[in-house]
Amino acid sequence: MDYRGLFEDAIDTLRREKRYRVFADLERVAGKFPRAVFRDAADNAREITIWCSNDYLGMGQNDKVITAMQETAGKLGAGAGGTRNISGTNRPLVELERSLADLHKKEAALVFTSGFVSNEAAISTIARLIPNCLVLSDQLNHASMIAGVRQSGMEKKIFRHNDMAHLRELLEAAGKDRPKLIVFESVYSMDGDVAPIEQIADLAEEFNALTYIDEVHAVGMYGPRGAGICEREGLMDRIDIIEGTMAKAFGVMGGYITASQPIVDAVRSYASEFIFTTALPPALCAAARASIDHLKQSSVEREGQQRQAQRTKEILTEAGLPVMPTETHIVPLIVGEARGCKAASDMLLEKHNIYIQPINYPTVPKDTERLRITPTPLHNDEMIFELRDALLQVWDVLGLPKNIDTSQLTAQALNSGDLVLPTIGG
Amino acid sequence: MDYRGLFEDAIDTLRREKRYRVFADLERVAGKFPRAVFRDAADNAREITIWCSNDYLGMGQNDKVITAMQETAGKLGAGAGGTRNISGTNRPLVELERSLADLHKKEAALVFTSGFVSNEAAISTIARLIPNCLVLSDQLNHASMIAGVRQSGMEKKIFRHNDMAHLRELLEAAGKDRPKLIVFESVYSMDGDVAPIEQIADLAEEFNALTYIDEVHAVGMYGPRGAGICEREGLMDRIDIIEGTMAKAFGVMGGYITASQPIVDAVRSYASEFIFTTALPPALCAAARASIDHLKQSSVEREGQQRQAQRTKEILTEAGLPVMPTETHIVPLIVGEARGCKAASDMLLEKHNIYIQPINYPTVPKDTERLRITPTPLHNDEMIFELRDALLQVWDVLGLPKNIDTSQLTAQALNSGDLVLPTIGG
Repeated sequence: MDYRGLFEDAIDTLRREKRYRVFADLERVAGKFPRAVFRDAADNAREITIWCSNDYLGMGQNDKVITAMQETAGKLGAGAGGTRNISGTNRPLVELERSLADLHKKEAALVFTSGFVSNEAAISTIARLIPNCLVLSDQLNHASMIAGVRQSGMEKKIFRHNDMAHLRELLEAAGKDRPKLIVFESVYSMDGDVAPIEQIADLAEEFNALTYIDEVHAVGMYGPRGAGICEREGLMDRIDIIEGTMAKAFGVMGGYITASQPIVDAVRSYASEFIFTTALPPALCAAARASIDHLKQSSVEREGQQRQAQRTKEILTEAGLPVMPTETHIVPLIVGEARGCKAASDMLLEKHNIYIQPINYPTVPKDTERLRITPTPLHNDEMIFELRDALLQVWDVLGLPKNIDTSQLTAQALNSGDLVLPTIGG
Repeated sequence: MDYRGLFEDAIDTLRREKRYRVFADLERVAGKFPRAVFRDAADNAREITIWCSNDYLGMGQNDKVITAMQETAGKLGAGAGGTRNISGTNRPLVELERSLADLHKKEAALVFTSGFVSNEAAISTIARLIPNCLVLSDQLNHASMIAGVRQSGMEKKIFRHNDMAHLRELLEAAGKDRPKLIVFESVYSMDGDVAPIEQIADLAEEFNALTYIDEVHAVGMYGPRGAGICEREGLMDRIDIIEGTMAKAFGVMGGYITASQPIVDAVRSYASEFIFTTALPPALCAAARASIDHLKQSSVEREGQQRQAQRTKEILTEAGLPVMPTETHIVPLIVGEARGCKAASDMLLEKHNIYIQPINYPTVPKDTERLRITPTPLHNDEMIFELRDALLQVWDVLGLPKNIDTSQLTAQALNSGDLVLPTIGG
């Protein structure tokens, strides 16, 4: 058995399919974001602009956040020293969970080391604690949610993306008496579209189902206190479990759920991924809490981001670039095939010092390969014009198509019956 | 459907079985470890001594480690800003992975947000990339390894704990031609015993199997450069994949694997848990690297810990307390039933300001419920005597048994055929 050759073959498969990924070696510079230092394969460094960060509001370089991290590390040390149960529960973590419960107006919150783990652990634990639970899962749910549903071992039905008629049909077929868990996202990160949350809450009430929403691409960014789309729509009390992250708009790391006390307590007590993991370091908890508390008070970052995202959409669209219309801060620029998408990304970095990572199949459906642009409040107008000029040159040199009917892209992909399971992406 | 009642019932079940856990709210104080501030339910604070930390060497409060975290946060900001592929790969993370590969003398390393995720992601990905792989897994493997094996979907055989005759039997039954992955730990954390690594490597060679070792309770602490038991025994090159953590002896957080370039690249490219997770913050990576680099050079912490662990064992044994003999730094003190174990832990905290978390079934077999003591180099002799006196009082007041034949405990539990699946613990 040639084990080495076998793993080499697995890698070669990805290279052949143009899915092999080389991670860009970046060094963010506090105070200069979205500028960063990029190092190429030969270790040569140069300054570039990041246009695809999930640090949506630039909170990762906010002074209060950095200071909280530094001071807490100085006072309490580097790590937590154990799992939550074995001496790892630290004061800043307790306070962070209180702040998160308050943010979403829920009875309790529970912090995990990542959004992936929070979805995997919470969905699988909640579903398997409900006897005979049927999980109803949106077709475009994130890989971590799919992992949670799969690990629960419970029966699942996939409803077509945001399709309320289909969800109703599945609920009716299951009947009111069977326990049901509806699992979905608020903002879908690749297309930037939003779920019909109120309709889902209405259906859940009608059919007596529990509801679980992933707000990772919305927390910090929508609603008066930054609690997400549910807050903006006045729907937080109508969704049973709200999951979020501290790694995107809050600029730090870690995931969480908020819900009623018994649900949070059950996940805390039964989820293996939670129980057997070292607690988040106090310094990270303090930094995350500083960010959350700041964004509860301040809307400047949210407004700046919405403004610059809107400007980016308008400027790129006016220039004739194939921007897919979205209701959110996410600006997908359609290329429509994998090789060109990768080439565009490479050329932007090499010739224009602009970093936008290519998004190819199977993260998105074939023929919708894209550059996913995420403007922050720190991307000023000058940067947007530089981005436009660079993109126009790249589109020109590579001969990429401009006349794509972007308005129908998602629907087309979905009508093709191509169930998108994002087995590789991120 | 009364969902709330259902989760309340799940919690009540744990309460009835004495398995419900209340996390101690602790605040470590840099420079004072193992002392910490404990807050009770009424939020009253008092100073206690932690005797069950996994920050085995106290590196979480090492000056170099804290300074690296603070300086890097100041320079690069709080979070990584994205997944590894979406602008999250940061310079300190690249350097950390190089240092880890060097530590274990492997071609490459890959960092995850926790040891749990590293085992789950790496074992499941490696096994499923090997066609028709048979996984051979030690009976006492950690929950995260069991999760990885299960998620791979491949056939598995459990061999009796550290039983080489049984492992040989299973290897012979599978035959030399079938691809095989042997999954085991170096130090088993509850009993503190060590795997016969050389014999496993010999069997793997004879039967052409791949080998995966979990060294989370050994890295930093054994071997001239702190690479673990494999380094101490001169066996690093005979094990294919070495998994470790930065959350225990290294005092920070995060897990990792080191292996050949193709294996690491395959896990990097195929593991969903890795791909879809925000990268570790630069400040954490810098802190972890400072700790690892320090322990590559310095043996003072290791020697201090071995000395104080040995002293603790001797002093408690001489006092007639039921210490289970171990070859490692872990000092299990047997209580032998769940209620007494919890009561002893509670009384130590309430009356003696000593925190040792109780370990009950199913983390350990029934009748072997214990207090798991982990002395560090920072527990001085005076603290050990205080611990002894407190334990003697608690044993006396609660009428706990002293005359337990601890030498046969593990073997007894195993001979009972009770396959320990740690579904709750940590």
